[in-house]
Amino acid sequence: MQLGMIGLGKMGGNMAARLRDKGHDVVGFDFNPDVRDVGSVAELVERLSAPRIVWLMVPAGEPTRSSIRELGALLEEGDLVIEGGNSHYQDDRRHAEELSRRGIEYLDAGVSGGVWGRENGYGIMVGGSPENVARAKPLFDALTPDGGGGFVHAGAVGAGHFVKMVHNGIEYGMMQAFAEGYELMAASGIVEDVPGTLASWREGTVVRSWLLDLLVRALEEDPGLDRLRGYAEDSGEGRWTVQAAVDHAVPAPVITAALYARFASRQEDSPAMKVIAALRNQFGGHAVTKAAE
Amino acid sequence: MQLGMIGLGKMGGNMAARLRDKGHDVVGFDFNPDVRDVGSVAELVERLSAPRIVWLMVPAGEPTRSSIRELGALLEEGDLVIEGGNSHYQDDRRHAEELSRRGIEYLDAGVSGGVWGRENGYGIMVGGSPENVARAKPLFDALTPDGGGGFVHAGAVGAGHFVKMVHNGIEYGMMQAFAEGYELMAASGIVEDVPGTLASWREGTVVRSWLLDLLVRALEEDPGLDRLRGYAEDSGEGRWTVQAAVDHAVPAPVITAALYARFASRQEDSPAMKVIAALRNQFGGHAVTKAAE
Amino acid sequence: MQLGMIGLGKMGGNMAARLRDKGHDVVGFDFNPDVRDVGSVAELVERLSAPRIVWLMVPAGEPTRSSIRELGALLEEGDLVIEGGNSHYQDDRRHAEELSRRGIEYLDAGVSGGVWGRENGYGIMVGGSPENVARAKPLFDALTPDGGGGFVHAGAVGAGHFVKMVHNGIEYGMMQAFAEGYELMAASGIVEDVPGTLASWREGTVVRSWLLDLLVRALEEDPGLDRLRGYAEDSGEGRWTVQAAVDHAVPAPVITAALYARFASRQEDSPAMKVIAALRNQFGGHAVTKAAE
Amino acid sequence: MQLGMIGLGKMGGNMAARLRDKGHDVVGFDFNPDVRDVGSVAELVERLSAPRIVWLMVPAGEPTRSSIRELGALLEEGDLVIEGGNSHYQDDRRHAEELSRRGIEYLDAGVSGGVWGRENGYGIMVGGSPENVARAKPLFDALTPDGGGGFVHAGAVGAGHFVKMVHNGIEYGMMQAFAEGYELMAASGIVEDVPGTLASWREGTVVRSWLLDLLVRALEEDPGLDRLRGYAEDSGEGRWTVQAAVDHAVPAPVITAALYARFASRQEDSPAMKVIAALRNQFGGHAVTKAAE
Repeated sequence: MQLGMIGLGKMGGNMAARLRDKGHDVVGFDFNPDVRDVGSVAELVERLSAPRIVWLMVPAGEPTRSSIRELGALLEEGDLVIEGGNSHYQDDRRHAEELSRRGIEYLDAGVSGGVWGRENGYGIMVGGSPENVARAKPLFDALTPDGGGGFVHAGAVGAGHFVKMVHNGIEYGMMQAFAEGYELMAASGIVEDVPGTLASWREGTVVRSWLLDLLVRALEEDPGLDRLRGYAEDSGEGRWTVQAAVDHAVPAPVITAALYARFASRQEDSPAMKVIAALRNQFGGHAVTKAAE
Repeated sequence: MQLGMIGLGKMGGNMAARLRDKGHDVVGFDFNPDVRDVGSVAELVERLSAPRIVWLMVPAGEPTRSSIRELGALLEEGDLVIEGGNSHYQDDRRHAEELSRRGIEYLDAGVSGGVWGRENGYGIMVGGSPENVARAKPLFDALTPDGGGGFVHAGAVGAGHFVKMVHNGIEYGMMQAFAEGYELMAASGIVEDVPGTLASWREGTVVRSWLLDLLVRALEEDPGLDRLRGYAEDSGEGRWTVQAAVDHAVPAPVITAALYARFASRQEDSPAMKVIAALRNQFGGHAVTKAAE
Repeated sequence: MQLGMIGLGKMGGNMAARLRDKGHDVVGFDFNPDVRDVGSVAELVERLSAPRIVWLMVPAGEPTRSSIRELGALLEEGDLVIEGGNSHYQDDRRHAEELSRRGIEYLDAGVSGGVWGRENGYGIMVGGSPENVARAKPLFDALTPDGGGGFVHAGAVGAGHFVKMVHNGIEYGMMQAFAEGYELMAASGIVEDVPGTLASWREGTVVRSWLLDLLVRALEEDPGLDRLRGYAEDSGEGRWTVQAAVDHAVPAPVITAALYARFASRQEDSPAMKVIAALRNQFGGHAVTKAAE
Repeated sequence: MQLGMIGLGKMGGNMAARLRDKGHDVVGFDFNPDVRDVGSVAELVERLSAPRIVWLMVPAGEPTRSSIRELGALLEEGDLVIEGGNSHYQDDRRHAEELSRRGIEYLDAGVSGGVWGRENGYGIMVGGSPENVARAKPLFDALTPDGGGGFVHAGAVGAGHFVKMVHNGIEYGMMQAFAEGYELMAASGIVEDVPGTLASWREGTVVRSWLLDLLVRALEEDPGLDRLRGYAEDSGEGRWTVQAAVDHAVPAPVITAALYARFASRQEDSPAMKVIAALRNQFGGHAVTKAAE
């Protein structure tokens, strides 16, 4: 089927390619002229036959909000917008309401799979009405893995991004669990072959997982991880998961600890730990010595 | 090849069966007369041709220690003991030293895979000398998955159980990450199909893993987990992982949080939280009211 | 000086009494007819001479918001509202803006001290313009301890409630530290006199503090805390502190752990721990046994 | 009364001075010839009249153990050793047993108060028999604050150091709570006067405490803590508290988080966070780009 795709970066570009491979007719727009099919969103809307489907894959926040506003002005009653970026689930509700005032339909779709998705297929988690989900189902079928699975209609508008957010929160926790285990083995002086140990875990063990596969792959390329700094960004979903947990009074110590470890990794010097050092000086007497100088 | 197997419970019994399936000659002993081939450890030793291999699969701690003592008295120079239970890695060093005084060799083998191992194969992590590892390799090959992988010689005596311990620590963290995500989705009121969401994650997503497969399976059997209480034992390795992390000054917040969640799940009433309640009463004035009664 | 006080509950009532003790003229309103001086907010406004000062001590959220709206309609240019409840610091900015449209001034004041404040004095943390702070200073001087201290002008509107929020977050962490220490001593079987130990810490040690004094007092009244359940509410500021920490990428593991311990204390049964139990069953083989039944 | 004091460093030296101020007769030994009264432990023993009391204030671990061995050889039946350093409570039991074989008595005494103790008095927590406690009571009375309090006989041998260990664990949690609150206020951009806010909290608030007093003092000397690095050692008791909590299945998330924050503060680069970075590269596609280079 025909669709417009706005945002042809690493995720959107690969998704457009997979959709085309599966026979869909994708009209793509991006700010980068080298990858787009049309020169503007207006032209993209013009090229599509009504009722249109437009899939958004632009950064969350202002870029998505402004795209929604632009589409709200250009699309017609009965058209459908699928927000496939990383919007907060509460933003989805605002987007849907804004568009519904002009009769435009809305689905939110969380997309997982990273750069591997083009080949392996993506995990797709959708929120919205059953009618809209049914309408876009051929696209979801094309994007999810060939062997089936990888799709859920999780609930009403916002539910797709909510479960994608939780998925990423879980991912934070799992990654940190492997990270701590790695560091402990490396620090122990007992384990002579840390990469080999992790590689062996890929079969037969309880921890076998795609993340372990990726870690083994990373260690094959760089056995001591010497080319990397211990510095980790966070993409927003981890923070939102913690905030949702706090809002719902759900204890989430593991996901939160994983988030905080990333925060700490980005600090040159920790103001909190300066306080600890200052207090230790105070009761340990070093400051007294200083004061006597 | 021929080996003796002491301990024919859920783990040992399945391992003996898999070894026999692969053509090995297993002489088994257990306290349960229904499953054993010989009536005593002495008889087991007698039945094996020297140089013997005896694989221990009994509970960690005193049962393992007393089996080591018994074998130390019965085996001969050049025989090999493989401790496949969940011994602490520091106990392995004591066992090895004790046996080496009589010329008996020692390997420690961490075994992962649970009840699924008989069919799928086990993950095996070994500590000891290269010579002893080579000697027992046919047994490891039979136990690990048919497709290869699942084996590592992690280092000297103790290293096998050390990495198995870390493996279990990571497992704690991964399980807790899924548990927190599940609870948040269930508490949110937003996600209409929690089991379906988890099932969809089995394909295409970053969190796909064997633990996720097991969780989906559990939810198929009991969609609301209504047949279970939120009560979780811990088996020792989680505690040891935390203690090893503390010993090596490795921050392990995720693994530790997962362990503490289990501790808390087993408390009828939390003394710590009584203190919080008492303090809230004190500065909030309720206790003052009480005292005036 | 003259002021109106809206909200004469445990906090507001005691504060009004302390202000009167110090010679201020307080006109009080409350929904409870037994404690109020006037029958309505309108009557309270009428009774005060312009330029008026009205201190709000009502529950955060909708009660505060509707009081602000009501005062906005009744007060005149040059009057001053002091929001002394537990408003979120971002709400303060909205309140101030709303009132400023009619020329009404605004201060936010975080108040600490609980039921002990009437006698000991309160800690007062204020946000707003220097002019407004100077205007209300006689009230702050009356409320803070007689010996001096206990007052800060922390910054612009919102800063008072922000630092009060952080104060409460720190309080959560301190309380949980004592709670964990108490539980460990009680669980150890080693400490024969836990209340006596805590009592001894009131002098000479590093942990001496008002919270420790309160804990000792609580244990004098109920040595085993047998009259209490290990159940702890949270009042909002702890959650806001964690959310502010996440917003500012500040690792706050201790404050967050203290909050999560309260969440967990209120759960009859933990959905997360059901997941752990289910997973343990799955790989440990219990569920398999069940399935075979 | 007469006593020997072994170890005249920052703690022992101040304690000896306070004991002398209160009229006790202290014979001191230290490796530093400038501060000692006698040239050897043997000479110290010789100088004391039987039955002797010897107070040990040397570093925990091997220095304490070797002092115990030396005293075991030199002292006589009926003499009393008070181990006032930071021994692990399980070591106390070994020390007591070793000395008791020669009829020598043993007390363990945890001492809190830092460099301030000489003037303010110390908190003293003692483990041992009631008879031995009674015998040394004049010394404890001299060391504890003049106003009374600061002393507990917590239980049998080991109990003194156990509660001192827990005291320090609580201290870790309290310090980290202040540290997190400080960092959040500093990072917020909302609080214009962080040191002033903390100073104001010394009166009237729930968090008033000696640690807050020390923090205010440190900020008076160095308002932005610019002279310090965010680097914090740990002295052993924090680790032992966590290990005891794990041993007794007591959830101690706050104390543990405080300990891990110190561990992390000492890492130049975190191996765990390298793993996170590596995994993010893998599924985000950066590593793929690298591989293509």
